[in-house]
Amino acid sequence: MNRLSRIEGHIRGVKQMAIDERDCPDFLLQIAAIRKALDNTAKLILTDHIETCLVDAVQKGNEQEVLNDIKKALDNFIQ
Amino acid sequence: MNRLSRIEGHIRGVKQMAIDERDCPDFLLQIAAIRKALDNTAKLILTDHIETCLVDAVQKGNEQEVLNDIKKALDNFIQ
Repeated sequence: MNRLSRIEGHIRGVKQMAIDERDCPDFLLQIAAIRKALDNTAKLILTDHIETCLVDAVQKGNEQEVLNDIKKALDNFIQ
Repeated sequence: MNRLSRIEGHIRGVKQMAIDERDCPDFLLQIAAIRKALDNTAKLILTDHIETCLVDAVQKGNEQEVLNDIKKALDNFIQ
């Protein structure tokens, strides 16, 4: 939640840069930083999902759905 | 600016998902969608930067700085 709030604030900052008519490279640098922050957030959720939900599902013998979800998530983030 | 506002709203939606305690895969899907929207925004700025600022700089014979900025931007987005 804290990470998402920081990212939201970062995007508001980029909107302000548009109002201030800043140069293109400044935007690209900030957008790349936001993308990195988003990727780190996703990595945290994915790691947590693997360490808790998947381990739990394997122990209960019903891991197939969780494994499919993880494969889909990896497809979205590693292209 | 419209794209950034949509992305900002999208992030607020993901924060609401956290409050609603939604499942991990739902978050990952939404974060991947936001990342795609960010990448498309960056692509638009970069394309515009190449088509306007770079072309203009080449015509004036001072393209080196713009070329360096573009290389840095590509490094951030294509890894």
